[in-house]
This record gives sequence, C-alpha cells and structure tokens, in this order.
Amino acid sequence: MIEYRSLRVALLGGGTVGANVARRLIDHADELAARVGAHIDLIGVAVRDVKATRSPAIPAHLLTTDAESLILGADIVIEVMGGIEPARTYITAALQSGADVVTANKALLANHGTELFALAERVGAQLYYEAAVAGAIPIIRPLRDSLAGDNVTRIMGIVNGTTNFILDRMDTDGSTFDEALAVATELGYAEADPTADVDGFDAAQKAAILAGLAFHTTIDLSSVHREGIRGVSGEVIALASKAGYAVKLLAIAERLDNPADGIDGVSVRVYPALIPRTHPLAAVRGANNAVFVEAEGAGSLMFYGAGAGGPETASAVLGDLVSASRRHVIGGPGLAESTHANLAMLPVSAITTSYHVTLEVADEPGVLASVAKVFADHSVSVELVEQGLFTSEGSAASKGQTATLVIGTHRAKESDLAATVADLAKLKAVTSVTSVLRIEGA
Amino acid sequence: MIEYRSLRVALLGGGTVGANVARRLIDHADELAARVGAHIDLIGVAVRDVKATRSPAIPAHLLTTDAESLILGADIVIEVMGGIEPARTYITAALQSGADVVTANKALLANHGTELFALAERVGAQLYYEAAVAGAIPIIRPLRDSLAGDNVTRIMGIVNGTTNFILDRMDTDGSTFDEALAVATELGYAEADPTADVDGFDAAQKAAILAGLAFHTTIDLSSVHREGIRGVSGEVIALASKAGYAVKLLAIAERLDNPADGIDGVSVRVYPALIPRTHPLAAVRGANNAVFVEAEGAGSLMFYGAGAGGPETASAVLGDLVSASRRHVIGGPGLAESTHANLAMLPVSAITTSYHVTLEVADEPGVLASVAKVFADHSVSVELVEQGLFTSEGSAASKGQTATLVIGTHRAKESDLAATVADLAKLKAVTSVTSVLRIEGA
Repeated sequence: MIEYRSLRVALLGGGTVGANVARRLIDHADELAARVGAHIDLIGVAVRDVKATRSPAIPAHLLTTDAESLILGADIVIEVMGGIEPARTYITAALQSGADVVTANKALLANHGTELFALAERVGAQLYYEAAVAGAIPIIRPLRDSLAGDNVTRIMGIVNGTTNFILDRMDTDGSTFDEALAVATELGYAEADPTADVDGFDAAQKAAILAGLAFHTTIDLSSVHREGIRGVSGEVIALASKAGYAVKLLAIAERLDNPADGIDGVSVRVYPALIPRTHPLAAVRGANNAVFVEAEGAGSLMFYGAGAGGPETASAVLGDLVSASRRHVIGGPGLAESTHANLAMLPVSAITTSYHVTLEVADEPGVLASVAKVFADHSVSVELVEQGLFTSEGSAASKGQTATLVIGTHRAKESDLAATVADLAKLKAVTSVTSVLRIEGA
Repeated sequence: MIEYRSLRVALLGGGTVGANVARRLIDHADELAARVGAHIDLIGVAVRDVKATRSPAIPAHLLTTDAESLILGADIVIEVMGGIEPARTYITAALQSGADVVTANKALLANHGTELFALAERVGAQLYYEAAVAGAIPIIRPLRDSLAGDNVTRIMGIVNGTTNFILDRMDTDGSTFDEALAVATELGYAEADPTADVDGFDAAQKAAILAGLAFHTTIDLSSVHREGIRGVSGEVIALASKAGYAVKLLAIAERLDNPADGIDGVSVRVYPALIPRTHPLAAVRGANNAVFVEAEGAGSLMFYGAGAGGPETASAVLGDLVSASRRHVIGGPGLAESTHANLAMLPVSAITTSYHVTLEVADEPGVLASVAKVFADHSVSVELVEQGLFTSEGSAASKGQTATLVIGTHRAKESDLAATVADLAKLKAVTSVTSVLRIEGA
C-alpha cells in the first residue's frame, strides 16, 4: 500500500458540473491518487443552498455555504459556479492565498482574465481553464503547448451548442427559428432566456479566450464583433443548402497582416456564416462543438466533441485538477501565459471574405443589370447569381411581383461589401436586402 | 531589449522533418525566445551526408556527421532520423547526459518505449513524442493531461495517411487497390516498399503508443493484432458503400472488462473496418489522420488533421521543444508517464463487434437457409442479408452459377464469428468466403 501525501481541494459550486466533479473525485479517488502521486482530498463544496437536490448527490457533510473559509484551507480551488460575482472575489482570494485555481468560467475570463492571470503570475499560482471553452474538448492545452512552436493564423469554432442545435434543426427538418428554439428549450439545450446563446454573447466570450491564447495577446471583449442567429431565416438556410453550404454560428479569430491596407492585428468576430458541406465543420451536428485551427506548420486541425454537459465539463475540470496536482507533487511551472505579442484588435471592416447576399427584387427586366452594377461599382466581384427558390411568404412564382435573388461573391473587403449593401438598399427595384451572410472555409 | 539565457539544442536528422525544424528555429528565433523566455540556440544538425541537397536548406556550418559530440553539448536533443538504430543509442546517450529529448520516432517508442521512459525517469530527464503519432495533430498531450482525470474506454484512429489515401481513392473513383497504390506512390504518399503502411505495421506502432498512454499500461507491440488492407477489394468497398459505410484502416485500443467471460484487459488491434458514413471518422478523406476517443466523462472526442509531412511534423516537434525549453527555464516536471495500471493484453478473439461477411455462393435454392443455419448454430445474430451487386469477375447475373451474398451481423463475439466463418467455408454451396470485415462505430 503506497502512502500518498494529501492535496486539499475546495469545490465552489454544486450545480451539474460541480456535482459531477465531486462524484468523480469520490468514486475514482484511488485511480486519481495513482495518476497524480498524491491523494486528492475534497475538503468541501461551497453552495448557496445546502438543502437543494443535486444530481449526482453530494455527501451532505461536504456541503457548506461558507466559501471564504473553505478557500483558505485549500491547496487547489475549483470554481464551477459561473457568473462574474462572487466568482471573481473568490478566485482572487484563492490566488492571493497561494492556491492554484481551476475554473470553467468563460464569462469571468473573457471579462477579467487579464487581471486574474496577472495576479496568478505575481503570486506564483496557476489558473487553469480548459473547461471554459468547448466543454470536454481539449483545446486550451493544444493551443498553449502543442502549437507553441507554430504560428496560428486562424481559428474557426462552433463553440455554442445551443445555436448549433437550432441551426442544424432548421437545416435538417425545415423548422423555423422559433420552432427549433422551442425544441432546444424543451430538451434543456437552451435557457429560459436564450439571449446569451442566440445573440452570440457566449460565443464571443469563448472567441476572446481562444484568440488571446492563440495570438499571445490581450483581447478586449468589447472589441469582438458579434452577430447572433435571430436573423437567419429558414429561407436563407434552404438557399444555402441548395448551393452546397451549411449555416453555422462561427467564432472566428484571425491574424490579419496586410501592410498595403495598413492592416496589422487580430480580428475576433462571431457571426452566422455559410460553410461548404465538404468542410469538416459542416459535419458538426446537433449540440456538438468543434474548433478548426489553421497554423503555418501544422496546417488544418480540428478538435471535436460535446461542448457542454455536466460529465463532459467535469472531465475537463478534472484534467486541469490533475495537472495542478502534479505541479504540487513534483513542483515546477504551469501555464506560463504569455501575452507578449500585444496585437491591435481590428474592426470587422478590416476582414476579407466572400459573401452570400439575398435580395427581394421586383420581378422585371433590367433588375439584374442594375444590381450587378452596384457590386461592380464597389469592386465586389460576383461569382454566382441565382433566382431563389422561395420568397419569405411563399414561392416567387405565386407572388408574381417580386423574386428572390441570391448573389455569391468572390472574396471582397468587408468595407466594400458594406458599401455595396447600402447602395443596393437604395435601388428602387430592390424591395429588401433579406440577408447578408459571410462564406467561410471555402 | 530583453537578455535571454540560451538553451543549446542539437538536432539529429536532416530529412524533410529535420530541415523544417531547423528552418523554423532559425526564421522564428525571436518569437520563440519570447514564448519560451530563453534563446533557443541550434548548435548543430547531425546528418549522414553533409553534402546532400535539403529542402528547405540547412546552413552548412550547422551540419555535422559527429552525432555523439553534438549530443554531449546539448541541453535538449531532437531526434528526427527515424529507425531503431542508431536513434536508440543516441537517445540513450542524450538521456544519460541529462538532456531532455524530443522524438518523432514511433518505431523506436513502440519497440523500446518502456526502456527509454524508464531511463528518462531514472535520470530525471524528459522524453517528448507528440510528433510520433498522427503528425501535427495534438493527441499525446490531450490523452496525457486533458483526459488525466477521466477514464478512456476506447480509441479508434485513422493513423496512417497512405492507407487512408488508398481506401478513399478506391471508394471515390472505383480504383483497384493496385491502381490506388500506384497513385499514392506517384504522389509521394507511399514508399517504394509500401509494406509498413499497407500491411498495418506503422498503424500498429501508433496503436501501441496510444494504448499505453490512454490506459496507463505497458503495451507489448507483438501482442497488437494486425491486418493490412491488401485483402480489401473494390467489390467489398462498393458493397460497403451501398450499405452506408466507408472502409477505413482503424487502429483500435479498447478497455475490455467483462467479468462474466473472464475478460479484463486491453485489446489493441489494427484492421480494415466498416464505419457508418454518419460517423465523424468516415469524413476523414485523402491522406488525413484522425483519432476518435471515447471517455466516461468527456464522451466522444475527435482530433483531426494532417498525419504526416515535413512542416506538419515539425510543428509537433517544435511544440514539444517549447515545452522542454519552458521546463529548463522555469524548472519542474514534464511528462510523469505512469504505467501503473499494468493491464493484460487481450487477443483479438476477446472482442465483441458486428461483422460484414461477403460470400460467393451457388445460385440455387436452399443456400440462404444453410448459410443462416451456420450463423445461428454459433449464436451469431444476422441483421441483414443482401444479394451482392458484383462478383469478383463481373455481375452475378452474367455468370449464372454463383452469386455474392452479403451478411451483416449484430454484435457478436469474435470467437463465435471465427467459428462461423470456418463452418461457412466447409459448406458445399459456399464457393468462397470473399471477405470478413468488422463494423466499428455503428
């Protein structure tokens, strides 16, 4: 029988993730001790209400409402409560006491990561956060360590399971956004207030974390361009599908370096975009997540898996806990977060991509010519024009007076495309610009 | 200007990978120094022939044929020569001198990993090997660290680009094995002697490395069950495709624990298998690699990317080099390889899966009944029977006397299936058992 030293671990939060972390620590104590070389002693779980029902159950003697005291007795603190406060205060206290911290809190890191990482570095503690992005999918460690000798040029992620479920459902069975959202809510994929998911706030936080890590730079969350999926209609998804694309909410972080245009920095953005069906990201179905990484040497990589869920997120938390524990046992370094690059955050107008524009136009001669001229006037090259299958209210044929026009462009500057769209809206023959979506991965 | 300390790095091997590693170290010296906190000083590149042409070029003053002297002056040794000797001798010397080692050498690790890891642990040095499996795809670190608090139950990998290219080609354009192999050779995906790839030796080495890491146990390479793809005909691929499957050469490592049958251990095996088209591995095209991991908490994960290539493998080597360098700068632990589990290696007869069996049978009444009886006699439940599209020499219809019969089974024990096949071959009405392939991921 090997005698191990003990590591004192405090758990903050007893929700689904916390309950799964506690269960695994208890059920797999011996196996974890063998892997770490120390016994991991769960000294307590701080919760708001010790009487609440939990699944899986947490032994009652571990529950406490006194997080502060719990933290002060711990070697390692795991924070899975979510939200900014009191998580920020607790993590700060834990780091100041010299404890290492494992967190799954994307909102906190996206908003206050710089301050927390600086504090950790100052006191010589470590802050682990694999669970904060894309649940159980290992993406933080690969970006931080595996690609540390390479240069990442671009990241495209499906990092929000709720919106991927909704868009996939709309694509698969022709549901409307509202119908698909209702199913997502019923299945527990969407919250009662779905704003954080469908309007892209959650994805923007994850994009900021990934971009900071990939480009070794500090990312200001307020500079992340963000568009949600409320404006994506079933019609647009059907038109995209017909053209060989899936529509996905993408979190994109891109290194842009184009001296001719004075562009040198990082673009971080979240928006629904068209992806070719042949692209690996197009095959990410349901509530799954995936992160597609392009690097100079490594080429294209993809990391795929469940983006959320109690056991899945707990798996990522426990991986970090083992890393933190090994550090306590053997000593030595942890993350070495370095934000030495200090790159500029670029506005979305700095990007270049191709576009899928849907217009409602008068069904009369000469319309196409005038529409085409607007594109040409702004140096946006048109690759493809198609009469749409449907209008918003039914088939074009049945209406007689308007038709749907779908235009695919070659790569163009976002600023040129924006000017094009503004001028299209002014054309008398254009009833409305129904949809403008970017095409990525083509 | 920051003054960094220097780390002395020796590179063994000046082939495609070595030349790419050297190029990156030279071109990105400043960026790497900022990431590591030390200047990485490439002190020399040991090669067999200093006059050979290299792409990209390596500065002549760095080249040497004296590997032994180079090693003794290094803090970190990178081995990208491949092969067992002299790589084994050099790595042993490097570790004994106290240097950390980064290697891309799967053959060496699969055959002598236990001895080399033990030496590294004894002397307190580290042995990094992300590049040894699946090129640039980060899979070692996720298995070792990210999933360290979880239990991996199964790994299925497409880890050999050459065979995936050949099978994909046969699937896509109906090439025969020989035609597809010829194209692979022409494009540089296959070696002049393709044995290591097409007979599964390369995949078996990678399977052994992955299994050892995932299950914390020592894997004996000679216990890895291995079948190559020479026996996979165009006909079988067409039949599989018609039934909704792709044929892939899979490296599988599986934890089997079935007390009722006295089965408790690890099965490591390489064989061509059918994968449902809807499975993420089925979408891995061309010479790409992917590793699909199932774990208790994390659920299903997939890691995808280029499996080989100079810049890609160099990217993985450099990631390890940065890790090793950070360890030198900050001090502390590295890998903590632990093989504490000590699980039994199980023979392939211990597995349970479903099967796709193709028979050439007499085209006469009663054949199906006698074939079905053989399956039933061995408790193998038949899910599906189809008359095949083709026989080996042409359509069944044109031959008149024999027909192709395709049988899909439910999950069955490999030992029962083997007995079934043996008895099928004895049936007078069965001309031949054309193909027996396992179905995975269904």
